[in-house]
Amino acid sequence: MRPAPERGFPESEFEARLQAAQRLMSVQRMSALLLSTEPEVRYFSGFLTQFWQSPTRPWFLVIPAKGKPIAVVPAIGADVMARTWVEDIRTWSSPRPEDDGITLLTTALRDSAGATGRIGVPMGPETHLRMPLGDFDKIRKTLHGNDFVDATGILRSLRMVKSDIEVEKIQHICGVVSSAFEALPELLSDDQTEIEAFRTFKTEILRRGGDDVPYLVGGAGQGGYEDIISPPTNRRLQQGDLLMLDTGAVFDGYFCDFDRNFWFGKASDQVRRAYDTVYAATQAGFRAARPGATTSDLFQAMWRALEDGGALGNDVGRLGHGLGMQLTEWPSNTATDGTLLVPNMVLTLEPGMTFAPGKQMVHEENIVIRDGGAEWLTRRAPAELPEI
Amino acid sequence: MRPAPERGFPESEFEARLQAAQRLMSVQRMSALLLSTEPEVRYFSGFLTQFWQSPTRPWFLVIPAKGKPIAVVPAIGADVMARTWVEDIRTWSSPRPEDDGITLLTTALRDSAGATGRIGVPMGPETHLRMPLGDFDKIRKTLHGNDFVDATGILRSLRMVKSDIEVEKIQHICGVVSSAFEALPELLSDDQTEIEAFRTFKTEILRRGGDDVPYLVGGAGQGGYEDIISPPTNRRLQQGDLLMLDTGAVFDGYFCDFDRNFWFGKASDQVRRAYDTVYAATQAGFRAARPGATTSDLFQAMWRALEDGGALGNDVGRLGHGLGMQLTEWPSNTATDGTLLVPNMVLTLEPGMTFAPGKQMVHEENIVIRDGGAEWLTRRAPAELPEI
Repeated sequence: MRPAPERGFPESEFEARLQAAQRLMSVQRMSALLLSTEPEVRYFSGFLTQFWQSPTRPWFLVIPAKGKPIAVVPAIGADVMARTWVEDIRTWSSPRPEDDGITLLTTALRDSAGATGRIGVPMGPETHLRMPLGDFDKIRKTLHGNDFVDATGILRSLRMVKSDIEVEKIQHICGVVSSAFEALPELLSDDQTEIEAFRTFKTEILRRGGDDVPYLVGGAGQGGYEDIISPPTNRRLQQGDLLMLDTGAVFDGYFCDFDRNFWFGKASDQVRRAYDTVYAATQAGFRAARPGATTSDLFQAMWRALEDGGALGNDVGRLGHGLGMQLTEWPSNTATDGTLLVPNMVLTLEPGMTFAPGKQMVHEENIVIRDGGAEWLTRRAPAELPEI
Repeated sequence: MRPAPERGFPESEFEARLQAAQRLMSVQRMSALLLSTEPEVRYFSGFLTQFWQSPTRPWFLVIPAKGKPIAVVPAIGADVMARTWVEDIRTWSSPRPEDDGITLLTTALRDSAGATGRIGVPMGPETHLRMPLGDFDKIRKTLHGNDFVDATGILRSLRMVKSDIEVEKIQHICGVVSSAFEALPELLSDDQTEIEAFRTFKTEILRRGGDDVPYLVGGAGQGGYEDIISPPTNRRLQQGDLLMLDTGAVFDGYFCDFDRNFWFGKASDQVRRAYDTVYAATQAGFRAARPGATTSDLFQAMWRALEDGGALGNDVGRLGHGLGMQLTEWPSNTATDGTLLVPNMVLTLEPGMTFAPGKQMVHEENIVIRDGGAEWLTRRAPAELPEI
């Protein structure tokens, strides 16, 4: 196994992100960006902590039209923020429900946008505002001379294309989890419960160098699984079960997101055909993935292969998506998404189908778009359904 | 170790939650509640999945003034939702950026609130809206005859007081993690890096029956730690280090949240005094915690003990908080919070202080309020700072 890449980023990476954002802000006549979610704040600052698990305190980053980001954060985070490249750090003792950073944030926005500048806030698909709605309404009212406009496009276009260092981190966690999946047939058995099987796999990922496993779902059932986002149960695995594990593990704040299928015993022809179909669909998606193609081309290539294999339908709504600081990111591989692929986009290929009433087969791999075409970030799943 | 409690809840639990909410809605003249975050949706439905890690798709629950909740969820979640007690499940194929459930949600709100009924949305402290702001603004515009009002108080008053089944789940994960902490001196050594030590601890929690460890932060440093929300680094632990690990692990969707301190070698008098101080402060908080007292009484009791021990200050902003489906919940132990304690509230006692410039000592235990006073949910930390 390759050694783990260095953690963190050089300051030049954050400078590049900031400059790219400020160029787009200038085109869209925005004087400031207001960011409030974990990936948004981390993308421009490098601020990495699990403290976001606590919903109590809001955290803000303001991107001005010129100059470095301004952090408006609870005092408890001042030390961690001070180790990033951000210099202007404004803090208050939170929680303070009567004014939880709102006066400080209003001032920071006014410092950047003046009395009339447009303020960009992510308001579009796949975004949300991580602060009390009442507080945001208050700020909009106070800054009534400033238009609040949608900044989703800026975040989306920047974050969809990864730097080489970002790709390395994703590649590393993909390798760690590929190894864990490959070891799994030796570690699983049909006297384990689903909960035990999930725990075994999670522990194996940690042992092999994953920082964390924020996402692990799956399905298991006789002759196939019905749903694919359930937590595991105390049901015992048994001969004739199809088991699917789908995981988003992280290294240094970057995700992999892929799955593997396992059969307990000797698989039926129907199940093997379904596996061959999703495997072939992934292959078709991989071949279609090159600069100049679109996410809808990927969708069509995969969907054709699924139809050829007799798919009865698909409830997932898309056949893969962007991947990076979050388990799922823009864009989506759908019939209508149409996002142009460019080098250093990281995507999942995720063909899935209902192959019999109430029985699904899903498969997923992670790729990066390069000049010549796609490269696998995951080690390819076995061409034949593994039997345990 | 006690066996793990059964997973899930009987339907009567959800009925009780719904009835309590509808009583409060009636008092506050609300015709519907709009809920969008993981704990809000889970609290009234039992819908449990890690799929929330993906920010792509919104999930909604509408609570009408009468009758059961209405789920408005992506098709990918229909099977899992159908296993809950919710019957009215409305789905669409998500992602569909041009209308990601918005028409369905608007209809569900109109079904419940009519053309003029008030619609409650959590807008206050510790809440946020998990959907694109642009979509919410659209709904507010479409339903211009309906007032959108703050429903934080309803959620807060319900969720602050746990059922016995909820307390059991929290108690179970507190027990699991207490055991893992107690085993740690045998598992840690001063040739491990911080990352290795964190991983060892996380694996031990999983091995002992924790479902997941969504939160693990800590601090380590010569003679004391400076910040308490950092991820671990590749720095090697060494003699003379004070190490603190603070974790929120989960069982069946319920959190513990507490910490332990360890000293590598022979601790100095200064460090031992600081440990004794936070230990005594926790004890003072425990004694003050009984029905009829307030969170501010807890704060005062702990703060006096910290001052008596020579505290130079505290950057955390509070000395503990509510605990349950989230790592931190209402209320907060602060000087001004003033929440009345009633039986079955679950709280953390979290006294912390700066005991020398740049050096902190924090301690945390979990308790439940009972008729006669408080009960520990965690097994009490050692009275003397453990030395490794």
